[in-house]
Amino acid sequence: MTAYDDLMSFQRETEALGQIAGRLMWDQETMMPPGAAEQRGEEMAAIEHVLHARRTDPRVGDWLATAEPADALAEAQLRLIRRRYERSARVPARLAAEIARVTSVAQGKWAAARAAEDVAAFAPVLAQVVALRREEGAALADGGDVYDALLEDYEPGATAQSLAAMFDGLRPRLVALRDRCLGAEAQPPTLTGEFGEAAQLDIARELAAAFGYDFHHGRIDKAVHPFSSGSGTDVRITTRTSAADPFNCFYSTIHEVGHAAYEQGVDDAYLLTPVGQGVSMGVHESQSRIYENQLGRSRGFTHWLHGRMVQFFGDLGMDEPAFYGAVNRLHRGYIRTEADEVQYNLHVMLRFDLERELIAGRLAPEDLEEAWNARFAADFGYPVDKPSNGCLQDVHWSVGLFGYFPTYSLGNVYAGCLHAAMRRDLPDLDAALERGDPSPATHWLRDNLQCHGGLRSPRDTIAHATGAAPSEAPLLDYLDDKFAAIYRL
Amino acid sequence: MTAYDDLMSFQRETEALGQIAGRLMWDQETMMPPGAAEQRGEEMAAIEHVLHARRTDPRVGDWLATAEPADALAEAQLRLIRRRYERSARVPARLAAEIARVTSVAQGKWAAARAAEDVAAFAPVLAQVVALRREEGAALADGGDVYDALLEDYEPGATAQSLAAMFDGLRPRLVALRDRCLGAEAQPPTLTGEFGEAAQLDIARELAAAFGYDFHHGRIDKAVHPFSSGSGTDVRITTRTSAADPFNCFYSTIHEVGHAAYEQGVDDAYLLTPVGQGVSMGVHESQSRIYENQLGRSRGFTHWLHGRMVQFFGDLGMDEPAFYGAVNRLHRGYIRTEADEVQYNLHVMLRFDLERELIAGRLAPEDLEEAWNARFAADFGYPVDKPSNGCLQDVHWSVGLFGYFPTYSLGNVYAGCLHAAMRRDLPDLDAALERGDPSPATHWLRDNLQCHGGLRSPRDTIAHATGAAPSEAPLLDYLDDKFAAIYRL
Repeated sequence: MTAYDDLMSFQRETEALGQIAGRLMWDQETMMPPGAAEQRGEEMAAIEHVLHARRTDPRVGDWLATAEPADALAEAQLRLIRRRYERSARVPARLAAEIARVTSVAQGKWAAARAAEDVAAFAPVLAQVVALRREEGAALADGGDVYDALLEDYEPGATAQSLAAMFDGLRPRLVALRDRCLGAEAQPPTLTGEFGEAAQLDIARELAAAFGYDFHHGRIDKAVHPFSSGSGTDVRITTRTSAADPFNCFYSTIHEVGHAAYEQGVDDAYLLTPVGQGVSMGVHESQSRIYENQLGRSRGFTHWLHGRMVQFFGDLGMDEPAFYGAVNRLHRGYIRTEADEVQYNLHVMLRFDLERELIAGRLAPEDLEEAWNARFAADFGYPVDKPSNGCLQDVHWSVGLFGYFPTYSLGNVYAGCLHAAMRRDLPDLDAALERGDPSPATHWLRDNLQCHGGLRSPRDTIAHATGAAPSEAPLLDYLDDKFAAIYRL
Repeated sequence: MTAYDDLMSFQRETEALGQIAGRLMWDQETMMPPGAAEQRGEEMAAIEHVLHARRTDPRVGDWLATAEPADALAEAQLRLIRRRYERSARVPARLAAEIARVTSVAQGKWAAARAAEDVAAFAPVLAQVVALRREEGAALADGGDVYDALLEDYEPGATAQSLAAMFDGLRPRLVALRDRCLGAEAQPPTLTGEFGEAAQLDIARELAAAFGYDFHHGRIDKAVHPFSSGSGTDVRITTRTSAADPFNCFYSTIHEVGHAAYEQGVDDAYLLTPVGQGVSMGVHESQSRIYENQLGRSRGFTHWLHGRMVQFFGDLGMDEPAFYGAVNRLHRGYIRTEADEVQYNLHVMLRFDLERELIAGRLAPEDLEEAWNARFAADFGYPVDKPSNGCLQDVHWSVGLFGYFPTYSLGNVYAGCLHAAMRRDLPDLDAALERGDPSPATHWLRDNLQCHGGLRSPRDTIAHATGAAPSEAPLLDYLDDKFAAIYRL
């Protein structure tokens, strides 16, 4: 056994234990009896403790010092193990434990504050979370930029500067497009009615299968929040239904199928290794977003979906071109997760700018609400009506996820690049989508991106799939074309 | 922190990790996607590896050497930790790993052999399992009796000699009662018909609630084999349905509720400690059997169940006294798990005698089928018709469970003792059972036995609850009275 073999054998068990921790989270959101929460907290803490001990095990450092990679795959494995090891080594155990404790409390306080529309009840614990993550970021940054160090957890290689440049590139054309759409004479209709849960779930399962979700290696359950969980051969997703809004169920299902298909699509040879997972949050989101938007909300696919919904629910009160508009229409709203394709990234920019200010110490947590409301009014042209529609809407900051939000927009930008490349390779894609068959596209994504897992850096993963360095232009061109047609601009 | 505190803090995490391993088993039988089996194998191996390392951690030995118990509870905790530590320390890691590997293979070969009715395909791997468990037993026995050493895993304090004496006490009266019942003129009827699954599951949930199953700290799902899983505040059970035999669903549900209620009923203060679980297989089985038989198959409760079934399914073709007979009737059969209360222990005796011969090396695994069939014909008066009804019917030996079977009969004997004591304390129990309310009995069990978890040895647990040393007489008296009435002997 070489040092590399020893390391990989140790790492494989760590990966397996990590999968167990993920399964417990899934169980917690789908199956766990309500009275088991406290015991589950101890169980999660126990397995996290085991994982932390393995990640900081001095033997890992020894193996890393002497392991010699035989090929590019081994190089990638070592790079990923080294990154995690060095990260864990830089954060004192005391700080890691304190962050785990405080964010657990903060998540509860956030939920209560949101329910009570009471920002003041959340601000003190948010201040604690910000302080702890700043301390952690400083430890990780080792003299460099603190926010960049936090970003590294979600999008290795990304920097505040590169992301700011991306948003600068997105903003003018998105704002212009948004204003043209909202000002247009031809406004698409809104779907109205009551849509039974059983039929929604039947269609959701059909959609999942159409988009290549492998039920042999996964399952769909209901949960409060849709999510995808697990890697390798056990990748589970959840969905939810709303009687008035079946699109919520359908498109969140397709979105999660995008995440799950990425995990299911990684080369079997990488199972339970660091490379055997999606490479970053941004690339992950590129999969969920391209499934959901560029494919699921396409002219072709909505043609098929319209037919399927009519079969299940009868007349929808609109013909099929109007249905395409209803699926894609822009609307005034406060909530990021409910935003349309054009406005979504504007919601993210707001968070990106505010969280950098929080981490830099230039914005005090107690001033967050005022800053959020001012920025929202400036960006969207109408005031926030209540905190649950404003700065309390997302769970992220309460659990310490600073640097996570921009990966959503990065995912959209990457999806734009992938979509443009895919369209060049698949001239007949529209015909397949019209038949309800996105498989040429999902196979293209599997073969060009998903199968490679974490073999390359996030940007190189996209560049390898598309043949070009990522840029925001393809996304903007796609949005301009699509919405010009819908709104007859 | 004293050595005791350090030990208990370490042990608490071990218990939490043990609960996680149990939850994975539950998931595997209820929720896991079929294609995830291989990955799950690695996940299970990883967590078992962690657990084994913790159980044999030298620090545990150091703490045990210096910890000073402050009270009886601490004494019990230390006794349980010491037993497991010494057991783990005696079994070489190589042997433990080999047993895990071979029993995993053997279980698959057993299932295939059973399906093919081919004992010869199973005998070689059974021989391996027997040899490994004999080796393990010898390591554990340290010069003492090998079978007794294996028993210790399931029923601490029991010995082959004490169990043989118990079976000697049971056999003559059970055989006599069986022969009188089967020869009686008045034979109870058999329930016939088709019973819908949804209604069976509705009744099963109602039964679970009636017997005190706490859904706030548990859940019921369908699985191929009914089981109970987990301790503390997350104790889940499974059930199954058969269109022709609703009693299978109802009584296996009540049986598993007995196991689950024991775990749910342990004092909250013992959560995630060694004392915070059922004390032994025998005492566990006493709970499942008393719920299922002495309570669930009682004259009073079947009165209520008859009424409930008529409401769900309409006329059952028999009046309520005949229904009581149908629930309890003796029948010719081959399968232990389907046996009636009178004959059940005869099935166990057969296994107890044969497995002692296997472990002693006096019976070769290739001669098992012949020995089984001869013994079965002698004990039951008719020949085994096929291996799946004979020596291939149970999974136990394939996974190395030698010493487990007798705990089923021990559970019946303990249930007899508990039932006699409970009846003395609860003169009005029959009236409550007739109303479909076993709660006086289940509360009695919780207060007198379940709440104490592993505080006392198994026999002392029964003695504490009943006020007397356990004996087989109460069970035999109960069976004689009950079946004399049903068969008008």
